Amino acid sequence: MYRTASRPRRTDAIFAATLDILAERGYDALTVEAVAARAGVNKTTIYRTWATKDQVLADALLESPSLAYEVPDSGCLRDDLMGVAGQIAGLLADQSTRRIIGAMIGSLPDRPATAAATSSFFVDRLAREQIIFQRARERGELTDAADPDMIMNLLAGNLWFHALIHSRKVDDTYIERLVDTILHGVIGPEAGG
Amino acid sequence: MYRTASRPRRTDAIFAATLDILAERGYDALTVEAVAARAGVNKTTIYRTWATKDQVLADALLESPSLAYEVPDSGCLRDDLMGVAGQIAGLLADQSTRRIIGAMIGSLPDRPATAAATSSFFVDRLAREQIIFQRARERGELTDAADPDMIMNLLAGNLWFHALIHSRKVDDTYIERLVDTILHGVIGPEAGG
Repeated sequence: MYRTASRPRRTDAIFAATLDILAERGYDALTVEAVAARAGVNKTTIYRTWATKDQVLADALLESPSLAYEVPDSGCLRDDLMGVAGQIAGLLADQSTRRIIGAMIGSLPDRPATAAATSSFFVDRLAREQIIFQRARERGELTDAADPDMIMNLLAGNLWFHALIHSRKVDDTYIERLVDTILHGVIGPEAGG
Repeated sequence: MYRTASRPRRTDAIFAATLDILAERGYDALTVEAVAARAGVNKTTIYRTWATKDQVLADALLESPSLAYEVPDSGCLRDDLMGVAGQIAGLLADQSTRRIIGAMIGSLPDRPATAAATSSFFVDRLAREQIIFQRARERGELTDAADPDMIMNLLAGNLWFHALIHSRKVDDTYIERLVDTILHGVIGPEAGG
């Protein structure tokens, strides 16, 4: 995160403008000038806190209410993961979020700063999700060997293919099947070649 | 697939030009005219077989040697999946493939034809991978309930997050851990909340 202790005036408007421009017109159209104009602030207001558009973008991704989701606390790992999966599916069904993802992934290969912003978005998500796995370990549902990063990348990665690439419906039955496959495996713990 | 029984002259060059333009200059720069010029054919040669650039693109994705991979036949599901994962990781490590993926995902939300081409690429992959799961069922490694589509989207989805979004290294140890998590699950078949 690049913001200083004192946030600039109209920070929420700056973040909203950043994501709106990205979703509507793509990464190339995203400039500090365009963000300032849309947010109704002087561009020096932005530059005082963020040196580049990728720094504004990184913080906008982390803090925007439109991308936020609540970390569930159902009392059981399976229901918590189903709750997380449902919220990811909800984000992936939103056309504006799909455009933001498209713009970010499209910019990954050649723009290290965008790649860093994208990665840090998911690192931040995982940090906030750690409590799910900590609680599951405390309840004895999960051993210390289980890797939250691996689990979340299976969950989110599958949903990206299912919902984003194949545009298939993600209903409760699918989410249940997905979470159960991750928890219990395809062949179970003993069998195998 | 859009190609007719008789393929046009220089089809390989047309496919290579299509993917090269996409990787180097992005989706908007991809036109039938640009492909024709780069492949050294008349654009009517292309239009005789493919009505739109998305149709050429769909077939180029399916048939290009640069995106091809071999379906392993090791005699055991775990090794087959590790072989597939290793090849996916290899493709994701290639800068040209990363740019093609970026251009495709970036075009998904607003271009149904590109979305269809992207989806059909992965549908075709899965069709070719079915033999892995058929053999595993014949060997008694996998029950009929196991869903190859679910398995492949877990495998590829995780690798997309790990290698593409986070730019992390995918070595044999990681692939082994990933495949074993998919096969055996995070908590096994009995425990759970």
